[in-house]
Amino acid sequence: MVVLFLSSLHIIKSMDPAKTAKDIKSMKVRGALKIAVAAAGSLGDYEKTYKGNQDKFLKDLEKKGEILKKARPSAVSLPNAVNYVLYLAENTPDRNELVGKINEFIIEQKEALKKIGKIGAKRIEDGDTILTHCNSMTALEIIKVAKEQGKKIRAVATETRPRHQGYISAKFMAKYKIPVTLIIDSAVRLTMGKLDVDKVVVGADTVCANGAVINKIGTSQVALVAKEFNVPVICACETIKFSPETMLGELIEIEDRDHREIRSPMPGVKMLNPAFDITPAEYVDVIVTEDGIISPYMAYEVLRDKFSWEIKELKQHG
Amino acid sequence: MVVLFLSSLHIIKSMDPAKTAKDIKSMKVRGALKIAVAAAGSLGDYEKTYKGNQDKFLKDLEKKGEILKKARPSAVSLPNAVNYVLYLAENTPDRNELVGKINEFIIEQKEALKKIGKIGAKRIEDGDTILTHCNSMTALEIIKVAKEQGKKIRAVATETRPRHQGYISAKFMAKYKIPVTLIIDSAVRLTMGKLDVDKVVVGADTVCANGAVINKIGTSQVALVAKEFNVPVICACETIKFSPETMLGELIEIEDRDHREIRSPMPGVKMLNPAFDITPAEYVDVIVTEDGIISPYMAYEVLRDKFSWEIKELKQHG
Amino acid sequence: MVVLFLSSLHIIKSMDPAKTAKDIKSMKVRGALKIAVAAAGSLGDYEKTYKGNQDKFLKDLEKKGEILKKARPSAVSLPNAVNYVLYLAENTPDRNELVGKINEFIIEQKEALKKIGKIGAKRIEDGDTILTHCNSMTALEIIKVAKEQGKKIRAVATETRPRHQGYISAKFMAKYKIPVTLIIDSAVRLTMGKLDVDKVVVGADTVCANGAVINKIGTSQVALVAKEFNVPVICACETIKFSPETMLGELIEIEDRDHREIRSPMPGVKMLNPAFDITPAEYVDVIVTEDGIISPYMAYEVLRDKFSWEIKELKQHG
Amino acid sequence: MVVLFLSSLHIIKSMDPAKTAKDIKSMKVRGALKIAVAAAGSLGDYEKTYKGNQDKFLKDLEKKGEILKKARPSAVSLPNAVNYVLYLAENTPDRNELVGKINEFIIEQKEALKKIGKIGAKRIEDGDTILTHCNSMTALEIIKVAKEQGKKIRAVATETRPRHQGYISAKFMAKYKIPVTLIIDSAVRLTMGKLDVDKVVVGADTVCANGAVINKIGTSQVALVAKEFNVPVICACETIKFSPETMLGELIEIEDRDHREIRSPMPGVKMLNPAFDITPAEYVDVIVTEDGIISPYMAYEVLRDKFSWEIKELKQHG
Amino acid sequence: MVVLFLSSLHIIKSMDPAKTAKDIKSMKVRGALKIAVAAAGSLGDYEKTYKGNQDKFLKDLEKKGEILKKARPSAVSLPNAVNYVLYLAENTPDRNELVGKINEFIIEQKEALKKIGKIGAKRIEDGDTILTHCNSMTALEIIKVAKEQGKKIRAVATETRPRHQGYISAKFMAKYKIPVTLIIDSAVRLTMGKLDVDKVVVGADTVCANGAVINKIGTSQVALVAKEFNVPVICACETIKFSPETMLGELIEIEDRDHREIRSPMPGVKMLNPAFDITPAEYVDVIVTEDGIISPYMAYEVLRDKFSWEIKELKQHG
Amino acid sequence: MVVLFLSSLHIIKSMDPAKTAKDIKSMKVRGALKIAVAAAGSLGDYEKTYKGNQDKFLKDLEKKGEILKKARPSAVSLPNAVNYVLYLAENTPDRNELVGKINEFIIEQKEALKKIGKIGAKRIEDGDTILTHCNSMTALEIIKVAKEQGKKIRAVATETRPRHQGYISAKFMAKYKIPVTLIIDSAVRLTMGKLDVDKVVVGADTVCANGAVINKIGTSQVALVAKEFNVPVICACETIKFSPETMLGELIEIEDRDHREIRSPMPGVKMLNPAFDITPAEYVDVIVTEDGIISPYMAYEVLRDKFSWEIKELKQHG
Repeated sequence: MVVLFLSSLHIIKSMDPAKTAKDIKSMKVRGALKIAVAAAGSLGDYEKTYKGNQDKFLKDLEKKGEILKKARPSAVSLPNAVNYVLYLAENTPDRNELVGKINEFIIEQKEALKKIGKIGAKRIEDGDTILTHCNSMTALEIIKVAKEQGKKIRAVATETRPRHQGYISAKFMAKYKIPVTLIIDSAVRLTMGKLDVDKVVVGADTVCANGAVINKIGTSQVALVAKEFNVPVICACETIKFSPETMLGELIEIEDRDHREIRSPMPGVKMLNPAFDITPAEYVDVIVTEDGIISPYMAYEVLRDKFSWEIKELKQHG
Repeated sequence: MVVLFLSSLHIIKSMDPAKTAKDIKSMKVRGALKIAVAAAGSLGDYEKTYKGNQDKFLKDLEKKGEILKKARPSAVSLPNAVNYVLYLAENTPDRNELVGKINEFIIEQKEALKKIGKIGAKRIEDGDTILTHCNSMTALEIIKVAKEQGKKIRAVATETRPRHQGYISAKFMAKYKIPVTLIIDSAVRLTMGKLDVDKVVVGADTVCANGAVINKIGTSQVALVAKEFNVPVICACETIKFSPETMLGELIEIEDRDHREIRSPMPGVKMLNPAFDITPAEYVDVIVTEDGIISPYMAYEVLRDKFSWEIKELKQHG
Repeated sequence: MVVLFLSSLHIIKSMDPAKTAKDIKSMKVRGALKIAVAAAGSLGDYEKTYKGNQDKFLKDLEKKGEILKKARPSAVSLPNAVNYVLYLAENTPDRNELVGKINEFIIEQKEALKKIGKIGAKRIEDGDTILTHCNSMTALEIIKVAKEQGKKIRAVATETRPRHQGYISAKFMAKYKIPVTLIIDSAVRLTMGKLDVDKVVVGADTVCANGAVINKIGTSQVALVAKEFNVPVICACETIKFSPETMLGELIEIEDRDHREIRSPMPGVKMLNPAFDITPAEYVDVIVTEDGIISPYMAYEVLRDKFSWEIKELKQHG
Repeated sequence: MVVLFLSSLHIIKSMDPAKTAKDIKSMKVRGALKIAVAAAGSLGDYEKTYKGNQDKFLKDLEKKGEILKKARPSAVSLPNAVNYVLYLAENTPDRNELVGKINEFIIEQKEALKKIGKIGAKRIEDGDTILTHCNSMTALEIIKVAKEQGKKIRAVATETRPRHQGYISAKFMAKYKIPVTLIIDSAVRLTMGKLDVDKVVVGADTVCANGAVINKIGTSQVALVAKEFNVPVICACETIKFSPETMLGELIEIEDRDHREIRSPMPGVKMLNPAFDITPAEYVDVIVTEDGIISPYMAYEVLRDKFSWEIKELKQHG
Repeated sequence: MVVLFLSSLHIIKSMDPAKTAKDIKSMKVRGALKIAVAAAGSLGDYEKTYKGNQDKFLKDLEKKGEILKKARPSAVSLPNAVNYVLYLAENTPDRNELVGKINEFIIEQKEALKKIGKIGAKRIEDGDTILTHCNSMTALEIIKVAKEQGKKIRAVATETRPRHQGYISAKFMAKYKIPVTLIIDSAVRLTMGKLDVDKVVVGADTVCANGAVINKIGTSQVALVAKEFNVPVICACETIKFSPETMLGELIEIEDRDHREIRSPMPGVKMLNPAFDITPAEYVDVIVTEDGIISPYMAYEVLRDKFSWEIKELKQHG
Repeated sequence: MVVLFLSSLHIIKSMDPAKTAKDIKSMKVRGALKIAVAAAGSLGDYEKTYKGNQDKFLKDLEKKGEILKKARPSAVSLPNAVNYVLYLAENTPDRNELVGKINEFIIEQKEALKKIGKIGAKRIEDGDTILTHCNSMTALEIIKVAKEQGKKIRAVATETRPRHQGYISAKFMAKYKIPVTLIIDSAVRLTMGKLDVDKVVVGADTVCANGAVINKIGTSQVALVAKEFNVPVICACETIKFSPETMLGELIEIEDRDHREIRSPMPGVKMLNPAFDITPAEYVDVIVTEDGIISPYMAYEVLRDKFSWEIKELKQHG
C-alpha cells in the first residue's frame, strides 16, 4: 500500500482502481491533484500485486485506466495521470522499477503545491492587497507563504456563487492572520479600485495549448476587471492540469451543473449554471507552475515538455 | 387626498409627510419613482390643508421637506421631488394653483415609465437577446413593450446577489412569455458570448453630471463585459433620478449595506457590501429618459433643463 | 418658379411635388442636400400658386409632403425639409411671408456646403495625408478648400464597393491637383500605416441623437482602423441630415440594397448588401456642420437647436 | 484705477492698455486669469477716462484691444477678455454702466479660482493619492482645499521639464503640509502603480470645442497612463480659457518654445520644444469650472453659454 | 516519376526543375503547398536520374534549386521546400535513401491539409457562424470537415477584392450545403454584429517569427473587427509556410500587384495594390498547423522544430 | 592576460577579480556586456595562474565569483557571466580547456552587439523615423547599421532625465549623419504623431521570464504611447541580460537611485528616483537578440536555451 498525502491537511490511502474511481465519482476524493495522485496510486498498487504475464497486464491496466478516466471526465489531471502510468508501464518491463517510477511521479505531484507556493510568493510584495476568486489550494498556498515570509498583505475573497467556496478561502486566510474582506462576486470592479488591489491570484482547472485558462465561473470577469485596472493576474497551476488534448484542437467543454445549485426551479424560467469560464491568455500575466513562472502563451512548451508521450499517442489515435 | 398610483401594480394613497417619511424609511414605499411621488403627494396634501400665512407656510413646508429628505439619503429622486415642490411653493403664492402644479408634477412622474418603455422599445430589434441586471422597472418596461410589439426576443437575467432581485425580473419576463434564462452574476461574461447577447438593458439609481451611471452593484461589470463584446448598453432612467448636486462636484456616496445580506459574520473576516457601483459614461451607449434618448455625456443638459432652479439654489448655499 | 442650384455643378429647377417625388424616387435627384432643397422648393412653388383657403391648404400641403417623404424613406434630409416647410406653413398665415421663409431655408441649405468646407479646412494641416471613403461632397469640399488655401496635402481614396464611388472622389481630387492614391477597401489598414495617414475625412448620411454616424458601408471599419492608429476622424455633415426621430429611440434601418450591385446570383449563395453602417461616436473626433465643429456626442444639442419643433410634434404623435 | 488682485499672492494695479500689453509680453503679467483680468482692467481704466464721442471711442477701444491681443497670441483668455469688453462697450452706451459691467466681469474672474477649488475638492476623497503635472493654480487650489477640509491626502508632483514648474508645485503642497513626492516626468507610469495613485488633477491652458484639453507638454502622456490604470483625470479650468474659435474649426497651434530651455545647441542635432500637448476628451473624466463639473464633451455647451456673442462675431468675420 | 497530388482535386506529375520553375512562374502551379510539393518532386526526379559524382551533383542540385526559388520569390513554401531537399542531399550520400526521404517529405506535405482540417474542425462548435476571407484551402477544409461532422454551421464569405476569390469560397461552401452569405469587404464590421459571427477562420501566406500572420490584403482588418467584437480568429497554416528568415530579422516584403487588378488607369490618380497585409499576433487566437494548435506567439517554436537546419545555414551566410 | 575589447570604442584589460569588482562598483566598468566580459575575463586570468588542487580551486573561484556578483547587484549580466564560468569550471577538469571555453564565451559576448545590429537593421525600412529612449548601445547599433545600409532614416532622441543620456544618443546619431531631433521625455506623445514616428527602438537592462522588459525609467511610457499609435517597439538585448531567476518567480527590484540626480533636497518634499521601469510584453513587438528575433513571450525559451544549467542550480538551492 502506498500512503498518499497531500499537504498536511489530508491523508489518502491508495485503494484498488475500481474503488478509487468510485470515490472520485462521489467526490469523496476531490481536487485535481488528489485525483491524479489517487488514480496513479491505485494503478501502482494494482501493478505490485498483479500476477499475470506482461501482455495481459498491459491490457488489464488499460481497462482499469479507462474506468478511472470515466470517473470525472472534466478533470484533466485524471487522464493525464492515468495515461502517464500506462505509458510508464508500456516502457518499463521490470515491475519493481515501474512501481518506483509511479511513486516518483506521485511524490512529484505532492511536492508541486509547495513549490508553487514558494515560487509564487516571490511575486507578492510587501504591502500588497491580493484578490482571489473561489477556493484554489495553489492560489492560497502562494498567499499563505507570502504571509509566512513576513510580508504585510491584505486579501479580498469573492464569495463565488453558486457554492460559496469563497467562504472557505476567507476562513483559510483569517486562520493565517491575513486581514481579509469578503465581497459578493458583483463587487469585484468597485473593490478593485476602492481597496487598491495590487494583484489577483487564482488557480486553474486546466490550461489550454493557446494559454487560455479554464477556471471557476467568474474568473474571466475578475481577470477582465484586473486588466481594466492594469492589475496583474497570477494564475497558480500544477503542470498535471495542463491539457495535452487542446494541442490537437480539442475544446474544453464547459459543464452545465445542476441548476438547483442556483435555486429551486421557477416556472417559465430556464437556468444556466456553467462550472467554468475561459480566461484568454492576454488577461493573465503569469502562470506559476511547480517548474517555474511562465507567460500563459508558453503553455504549449509545458505541454511539450511534460506530455510529449501523450501527444504522440493522441496523434496516432486522434 | 391625492390618489397616487404607479403602473397597474401599485396603489399608493398620499399621507402626511411624517408618515410618508416613515414608510420610505421602512422601505414600505420603495423605488425611486414611488418615493418621489409619495413625497410630492404628501407635501401637496399638507399644502391643501394648511391654514397659516404664507411665510410660516413656506418655513413649515421646508421643515416637512427636510424630514422627508432624511428618510432615504441615498435616493436622489427624493430631494429632487421635495426641492421641486418647495421651489414651486416659493414661486406660486396661490395655493390652489400650487396644488395643481404639484399634481401635474406627480402625473408627469407617473407617465415617465410608460414613455421610457415606448421610447426604449424602439431600440430593441426582432431576434434580440437582451441581458438585464437586478430588477429595474424601467428596464423591464422596455423589454415588455418590445415583446408586446410582437418582437421575438429572448432574455437573460442575473440573479443579482446579495438580495436576488434577478429572481423577480426573471418571473416578470416569464409572465410576459419572454423566454428567459437565469444565471449567476459571475456567468455574465461566458453568457454574453455563448448566448449571443445583443443588448444590455439596465436601470439606474442616479445619473451624474459627467454621465456616470450609479446603479445596483455589478452593473459596471456587466457594462465592461458588454464593451468587451461590443454589445450596446441601454440604461433606462427617469430624469427625476439625475443628480443636480453632482454638477457642483458632489460625489455619490456608495452605501455599505448590512453585511448580513451577504452572510452571517465569520471571525476574522470583514465584509464589504456596497449597494451600488459606478458605470463610466464610456460603457453606456444611450440613456433612455421619458424625454427621449441621450448619450450619457448629455446628462449635463438634462440636469440643466430640469434642475436649473435647484442648481441656482445649490450655488448660493453650496 | 424657384431656381435651385447647389454648388456650381448642378442646376435644379423646382417642380410640383409629385414630379419632384418621382425624380427623387428614380434617383434623378440625388444627394441629401439636393433632395431637401428640391422637396422644399416644390412645396414652396405649390404654396405660391395655391388658391384655396388656409385650412384646406394645410391639409393639401401635408398630403403633398407625405408623397415626397415616401419617395426615399432612408434619406433623413427629406422628411426634415418637408416637415420644416409644413411647420412654417402652420405658423405663417401670410403666404408671401411663407414663401420668403422657405426661400431662406433653401438658401441656408445651399450655403451649408461652403461653410462646412471653410470650417473643416481649418482642421487640415500643411503636410497632411487625408484618407476619404466613398464620395461625400462635404468631405471633398473640406479637402478642396484646404488645397486652395495652399496647404500641401496628399489624399487616399478607397474604391468603395459595390458602386465604386471612390473613383469619382479620386478624379475630383486629381482635378484639383491633389496627389491622390486609389486603394481597394481592404487595403485601408495597411495604407493607414504605410502612407502615414494623418486624418480621415468622411461625410454622413445621418447623425443620430447619441452621436452615432450612419454613412456608406465601410465607414465604421475605416474609423475603427483610424482609432487603432490614433488618427482623428473628421465627419462632415449638414445639420439637415441629423435625425430627430432618433431622439425618441428610433433606430435607423440599414437598407439591404439590390444584390446585383455585388454580382450576379450564385446558386446556394445568399448575399447581403447593406447600404450603410454605423460608426459609434467614440470613433469620431469631430463633426463639422455649417454651424461649426462639434463632438459627435453633441448631436443631441444640434437636434434640439434645429428640430425642437419637430421633436414636439413627434412626441405628440409618436 | 481699478485695483486688481488674484489670490493672496498677487496685487496687480491696472494700467493703460499699451503698458499692460507690454507687461503681458514680457511675462511680467503671467497666468491666464491674471492676463485676462489685467487686459479687462486696462480697458476699463481707458474707458473711464476717455473723453471722445461714442463712435470714436469704440474704434479706439478696438485698437487698444488689438494691441493687447497681440501681446500673447497663445493665451486664449486674453482675446476672450478683450473681446468681451469690446462687446460690452458696443452694447452699453452708458459709460458708467459699462465700467460697472467690466468690474463685475473682473470680480467674476477673480472668484473663479475659489469656486473651482471648492467644487473640485468635493471630488477628492479621504485617503486619496493625487498626481499633478506642471504648476496649475486651479489644480493646486483643489488639492489645497481638500487638505483644508481635513482629508488625508498624499500628492505626487512631476518635475515638468524643461522649466521644472513641478518644483513650485511640490513646494506649494509641502507648505500646506501635504506629503508630496517629486518624480521625473518619465516616472509617471511606474509611480501610478507603485504609489496607488487615485486621481490625476491638472489645469488647462485651453479647452477646445470637442473637449480636447490643451495643457503643458506631457499632460496627455500622464492622462494616457491614468487611462491605462483606470485612474480618473480631473482637469481644472476657468471658462475664460475655453476657446470659442475652435467651434469654427480653428486648431490651437502648439508653440515651439526656445530650444535653449532644453539645453545648449549641439552640432547636427535639432530640437523640438513644444509648449503644450493635446489630451483627447476620452482621457479626461471631468473638467471643473467655476460653474460646475462637466464632462469634457460638454465644452461646446460652456462655449455657447459664455461666448455666444463672440461666436456670432466670428461667424460674420470668419 | 513521382506522382504528386493534393487533395482529390488535383493531380500533378513531377517534371524537371526548369519546367517546374516555369509552371510556377506562369501560375500554372499555384498554392503554397502545391508549389512546395512540385519543387521537391522535381528535385527528387532530378536526383534519381543524375549520373555524375556526389560533389558535382550537389552543386548542380543547388543551381536547380536557385532556379526554382526565383520562380515565385514571395512564396515562402518554395525556398523552404528547396532548401530542405538540398539539406537532405548534403546529409544523405545514398541516393536511394535520399529519394525516399524526399518522398516522405512530399507525403507529409500532402497529408498536412487533412490534418489541419481534422484538428481545426474541433474548434468549430455546433451552431457557429463562421466568417472567412479570400479563398484559403486550409480554412475551407476546416469548415468542410466541421460540416461533415454534422455540426450545424453557417458561413459568411467576403468577396475579397480585387480578384474576388471570395466567390470561389462561397461556391465551395454552397457545394457542401453550408448556408453561406456573400458580402463585400466593407461590410465585415456590420455583418460581424448583425449575423452574430462566432469565429473567423482564415489561411496564411506566411507566419513570421514573432507570430505576425501575412495573408491576403484585408485579413488584418477582418481580424481587427473580430477583436473589437471579441470573436476568436483561427488561422490555418501548414508549417511549410512559416518563414525561417524572419527569425533573423527579415521583413516580409508586401508585393504591390498590377494596378489594373483594381481598374484601368485614371489620369492624375496613383494606385496601390498590396497583395497582403500583416495581422499582428495579438489579433489571432490560434494557428492550426498539421502538428496541432498553437498560440501565434509560438511560431518561433515551430520554426525551431522544423527549420533548425535552415536557420543554421542562414546564420552562417546571413 | 586576456585582452578584452568591445566595439572599437573600448579596450579593457582583464585584471584580477577583486580589482575588477572594484572597477565595476565604481562604474569605471559600465554597460551590461562590458561587465560580463570583465568578470568572465578576470576569472579566466585567475584560473590560468591558479596553482592549488581542483577542489580548493573551485571553492576559491566561487568566492571570487561572489565578490564580483556583489559589485553591482542590479546588473543581471554579472551573475549570469560569473555563474557560467563557475559552471564551466565544475565541468571542465582540464584548466587549459577551461580557459579556452571562457575565451570562447567572451568572444561570443563581444560579437553579440554586431549580430544584433545586423539582425535588427533588417527591420528598419527606408524612410523610417525611429524614436529611441536613453542611450542603449544595442539600439544605436541597429540604427547605425540601417544608416550604413543606405536607408534614409530620421531619428528622435529623448533627453532621458535625470542623467540626460539622450544627449549622448543624439550626438552619436549626429556623428553618423542621421538627422536627429532631441526632445524632452514629456514630448514623446506629441512627437509620435507630429513627426510620424514609424518604429521605437530601445535597449533593455533585463528581460524577464514572462517577457516583461526592464529598462531605463520612462521606457514603459514610450512603449505605451507607441501602442496607442500602433507603432512597433523593437527591443535590442543580448541574451546574457535575460534573467534566469525570474523563471523561479523572482521580481526584479527597481533601484531608487540617489535623489540628488533629480535636484537638491527641498524641505517637506520627498523624492523617488527609480532607475528602471517594467514594460509588459504586450507593448513590445520583438526582442532582437544575437540569436535572432523573438516575440517577448519567447523570453522563456531563450532562458531555457541559455541558462538551463543555472536554472537547475537555482532550483536546487532556491
